[in-house]
Amino acid sequence: MTRVGVVGATGYAGAELVRLLAGHPEVDLTILTSRQYAGVSFSDIYPAFTGVVGLACEAYSIDAVSDNADILFTALPHKLPMEIVPGLVASGKKVIDLSADFRFSNAAAYEAAYTEHTAKELLERSAYGLSEVFTDRIRNADIIGNPGCYPTSVLLPLAPLLKAGMLVPETIIADSKSGVSGAGRGLSVTSLYSEVAESFKAYKVAAHRHEPEMEEILSAIAGVDVNITFVPHLLPMHRGMETTIYAGLSRDAADKDIYDCLAGYYADRRFIRISETGRPPDTRNVRGSNYCDIGFVIDRDHRRLILMSVIDNLVKGAAGQAVQNMNIMLGLEESTGLDMVPFPV
Amino acid sequence: MTRVGVVGATGYAGAELVRLLAGHPEVDLTILTSRQYAGVSFSDIYPAFTGVVGLACEAYSIDAVSDNADILFTALPHKLPMEIVPGLVASGKKVIDLSADFRFSNAAAYEAAYTEHTAKELLERSAYGLSEVFTDRIRNADIIGNPGCYPTSVLLPLAPLLKAGMLVPETIIADSKSGVSGAGRGLSVTSLYSEVAESFKAYKVAAHRHEPEMEEILSAIAGVDVNITFVPHLLPMHRGMETTIYAGLSRDAADKDIYDCLAGYYADRRFIRISETGRPPDTRNVRGSNYCDIGFVIDRDHRRLILMSVIDNLVKGAAGQAVQNMNIMLGLEESTGLDMVPFPV
Amino acid sequence: MTRVGVVGATGYAGAELVRLLAGHPEVDLTILTSRQYAGVSFSDIYPAFTGVVGLACEAYSIDAVSDNADILFTALPHKLPMEIVPGLVASGKKVIDLSADFRFSNAAAYEAAYTEHTAKELLERSAYGLSEVFTDRIRNADIIGNPGCYPTSVLLPLAPLLKAGMLVPETIIADSKSGVSGAGRGLSVTSLYSEVAESFKAYKVAAHRHEPEMEEILSAIAGVDVNITFVPHLLPMHRGMETTIYAGLSRDAADKDIYDCLAGYYADRRFIRISETGRPPDTRNVRGSNYCDIGFVIDRDHRRLILMSVIDNLVKGAAGQAVQNMNIMLGLEESTGLDMVPFPV
Amino acid sequence: MTRVGVVGATGYAGAELVRLLAGHPEVDLTILTSRQYAGVSFSDIYPAFTGVVGLACEAYSIDAVSDNADILFTALPHKLPMEIVPGLVASGKKVIDLSADFRFSNAAAYEAAYTEHTAKELLERSAYGLSEVFTDRIRNADIIGNPGCYPTSVLLPLAPLLKAGMLVPETIIADSKSGVSGAGRGLSVTSLYSEVAESFKAYKVAAHRHEPEMEEILSAIAGVDVNITFVPHLLPMHRGMETTIYAGLSRDAADKDIYDCLAGYYADRRFIRISETGRPPDTRNVRGSNYCDIGFVIDRDHRRLILMSVIDNLVKGAAGQAVQNMNIMLGLEESTGLDMVPFPV
Repeated sequence: MTRVGVVGATGYAGAELVRLLAGHPEVDLTILTSRQYAGVSFSDIYPAFTGVVGLACEAYSIDAVSDNADILFTALPHKLPMEIVPGLVASGKKVIDLSADFRFSNAAAYEAAYTEHTAKELLERSAYGLSEVFTDRIRNADIIGNPGCYPTSVLLPLAPLLKAGMLVPETIIADSKSGVSGAGRGLSVTSLYSEVAESFKAYKVAAHRHEPEMEEILSAIAGVDVNITFVPHLLPMHRGMETTIYAGLSRDAADKDIYDCLAGYYADRRFIRISETGRPPDTRNVRGSNYCDIGFVIDRDHRRLILMSVIDNLVKGAAGQAVQNMNIMLGLEESTGLDMVPFPV
Repeated sequence: MTRVGVVGATGYAGAELVRLLAGHPEVDLTILTSRQYAGVSFSDIYPAFTGVVGLACEAYSIDAVSDNADILFTALPHKLPMEIVPGLVASGKKVIDLSADFRFSNAAAYEAAYTEHTAKELLERSAYGLSEVFTDRIRNADIIGNPGCYPTSVLLPLAPLLKAGMLVPETIIADSKSGVSGAGRGLSVTSLYSEVAESFKAYKVAAHRHEPEMEEILSAIAGVDVNITFVPHLLPMHRGMETTIYAGLSRDAADKDIYDCLAGYYADRRFIRISETGRPPDTRNVRGSNYCDIGFVIDRDHRRLILMSVIDNLVKGAAGQAVQNMNIMLGLEESTGLDMVPFPV
Repeated sequence: MTRVGVVGATGYAGAELVRLLAGHPEVDLTILTSRQYAGVSFSDIYPAFTGVVGLACEAYSIDAVSDNADILFTALPHKLPMEIVPGLVASGKKVIDLSADFRFSNAAAYEAAYTEHTAKELLERSAYGLSEVFTDRIRNADIIGNPGCYPTSVLLPLAPLLKAGMLVPETIIADSKSGVSGAGRGLSVTSLYSEVAESFKAYKVAAHRHEPEMEEILSAIAGVDVNITFVPHLLPMHRGMETTIYAGLSRDAADKDIYDCLAGYYADRRFIRISETGRPPDTRNVRGSNYCDIGFVIDRDHRRLILMSVIDNLVKGAAGQAVQNMNIMLGLEESTGLDMVPFPV
Repeated sequence: MTRVGVVGATGYAGAELVRLLAGHPEVDLTILTSRQYAGVSFSDIYPAFTGVVGLACEAYSIDAVSDNADILFTALPHKLPMEIVPGLVASGKKVIDLSADFRFSNAAAYEAAYTEHTAKELLERSAYGLSEVFTDRIRNADIIGNPGCYPTSVLLPLAPLLKAGMLVPETIIADSKSGVSGAGRGLSVTSLYSEVAESFKAYKVAAHRHEPEMEEILSAIAGVDVNITFVPHLLPMHRGMETTIYAGLSRDAADKDIYDCLAGYYADRRFIRISETGRPPDTRNVRGSNYCDIGFVIDRDHRRLILMSVIDNLVKGAAGQAVQNMNIMLGLEESTGLDMVPFPV
């Protein structure tokens, strides 16, 4: 059994990692760290885990973590991973990082969006963890820069079509809507129930930090510079993300052409489900699961493709994809421990 | 005091009309009709109105309605208004119809989207009730075709800019998100709490009946054919609608240009609030009120304008705008009875 | 016009006071204070008030407040009002305080539940602001200790029956459920959307600070010591509170006896609506309004009365009752500025 | 592998059975029936199951069902199971029925609450499926009358204490709050999103059909007639049920006495978690799982015990407990296929 640990276990992504790893048949969850809750039993913080997870949180130390785990998941705010990952890698550990720190191959792009990168030398040993797109690199990487939830929902439907040259890059618009768990467990007026319920708005319009992340990957896939318009919105719900993408078609295409391109690219990849029927995907259908459902409609009047994708932002958009990447790294079936049936009801 | 009645008072739009008219200082609410609840006290159907509205519902008859009211609001499924409005108009009544039946000046466009139009001769006596845009026609019309909620949210931000020639018509994309009250009180699995809560999806992608309604009006405003891409989505909330619009700018424009165009067009119109700051509008800020808040961001990389509008779909998107139109027809201050402060909290 | 001010205007109760006072026809809202937001336009904090409230928040100073207002609403955490109210009263102002500081006539009871009381001498000049029960005292008081939301929902149904000796005091159990806005706008993990939505639990079981407040008032009404069991619960909703009360009947009673006792006590009081039919009251029916709806069922097998009450916790449970008390103090009709029709839809 | 089928698979309880049985390692899900959707692929009705469940719904026929399954779950409205279960049992099948038809050992009690019982002779071959309380009978029964969700939440905390004689039976009051999924997928105005969201009310006060079911079982456990007061309420949420119970203690008791009684009774039963600390249980902590969490507080002023329980009404309150009963019948570990970690986040 591989020993795994979660560094930063008490935020929402961390807790979701614990939920998934606690039920994973091929790993032992051996260590959880938390600055805020060091010394506190995990099941006192999240009583849901009573009888399921017996670990207490520890303060992070490289020794404790290295002695107890072979693979580490880091679920920390960006900048902190850059500080601890070099030591972990030096001691032979594999790291799956859920922050932005190891998502960019181009340090300058990271620095433009975030802050100075202090572990640039590790970028070439890291892979962007979009599981279905970069499987081979993930298999051999020491570090995974696990994708953001927005990029996951935008990149998965676009990748096959951009790669096939079917879309006009400069026309791409992604209108995304996210459940509030994406904002994490940090305290903020904008995350209060009374501010979120029965409310809807855009935010960080054409200015979200996830946009450069998407553009770097899209450009790599397309082989040309891709610069998109991205507008995120906040949904009055907890889990779930939907993205509606508008893109000009570079040539006339029938429904079958679009379907074949998507379905061909994702052949044999269990977690990507493409709708043949034009039925728009619904976040309910992926709730609690690692699926990404994709649907599309061609707007013939404008030779424009409308793509829609849904994910559970905490699963395929964070912890689930991280576990999927671990499975790939370990040579396991990629769905090991992730075969949860979604909760449509 | 003008006597007013509501035909079809027990659906959500009808009940919202009752709420607004019961508190209106210049009208007497004299008659409510309902097929399903004829003979039942309105406050037995909606106990919230106990002590506020003493009327019982009646079955519709032209005599009862004509004898008791000077202005009628019809809140019925499309097709029914076409059957009863001719008689009402013939007996000298004014009608504000919340269905699609009198929204189109072009009967063929109506028929393509709905069904055969059986009162075509009245279309020239009706005005499209987008209060701030067609004020003069509304003042003098016998019939108001009160706009749909989606068109209201799409047309108000676009009208000034299209009229000024600042947008490239064929690039317009409207991505709308609606609270579920827009689907009304009819029984449908898709409106059940358990299907809507914690769920989000697109529906009728590029195929919603409100699209031709928008296109007829936009074309009239722009003076050229405008054909847009419209994708509605269903929000897990009750009241509120947000639309994010993407449109190519026909020439370079500064923030001030956009603001001035919008603010100039709506000068002195109390219910339209334009944000100067780029802060995206939030449905909370218009909840329970007749406001339409509009914000915008220019995406300079693509010379693309991102417009955002929010309304309460039951107020500015239905009953509130209907009352505003009544005020205009009666020569009252347009905000009479509509000066509710929104409920941000 | 009476000039009024709100001290602590930016919390939820404060903002609701602003909403109600901005629409009140007999008062001028002249000053808003906030420590956190001094110098900031109120409509920048709550954009919903754009075009409605033009005031900026000021830091509190007795001079600014005294110069500008005749009646002050204090919406602050307990302890702060004790510090500022003495000065306000000394300068001839009337104060309606929404904290616990002036709710108790017995300082010891306050101190047992809260902290040392530093303005005990003012307790005899203050009235408990349960509008329908203590109308006369409210009319003549200098200070109103405005009731908590839980006590309002518990006391209004119990007062008439306890006064009439129809209930066995030691059997009273109140099981209350509150929307999360009752917890205010303060930052707390337990108020985050992701913790509240799709979740329900009891808290502070038989240990809530509102229990002594209820017991002091119930004892005064009954003329004997009343000691109840009170269990609050947190609802996954924003506004609204329901209390189900179980109490042994001191003698056999018919439905009509209960109804007559309640309806007789509240005769001519517009905001109390008693159901004759046994239909349980629903929070929707009072949403956004100052109503308290009361229903009841007699459980004959146990000679036990089941009482149910609903209020909007921010209106009748806080800001609305405060305005009602102001109306009483000013000799106005008690519903002035409070005649909002509820939002059942 | 045991072959299992679900009769009535498309309601919420049916779909939850499918979710659980599809992931169960020791059974094969072989047949799904639905009157309404005969011939339709299950994953067209619930797209969440695409790639997970390949079955289409069939119309019910005893031959199809008997040929394909060894154990049948019937998730039908009451009365229908009485019609089909006799045939199934006659052909040697085991049946786990989620309706009320086989919950009562006393046919007269059933008939008083429901309708004439047409399969009385089978009542003695059926066991009440409260898994932890009637384990032995369940193991040997041909038919399981699977408990209602309300009874499960009421009986589990009460059973040990009543059995031990620690409670005064006639003082028991159960105040329950249920998520709306308990009302099923049937069409009803009261289940619409717009009627449920931001709303809370009691219903069927002291008149719910589940009350006689509880009383029969409680009386059997206590050995004396137990007649309780039961008030259900409807929560604005999908899944989850909380019950707060008030009961007089028959003798003074310390916290440890209560804890020991509960923990002793449920020793080694994985799905019952008793809180030692007085922390009230939260529905979040059992969401999506088969747990029942129980907490308690002693109200010493009244020698009254306050018990609180939470379940996921679709899992422990319906489909999960049904699967647990199947496991018991098959001699499997009772948690087989039910070891889902709850979703606190």
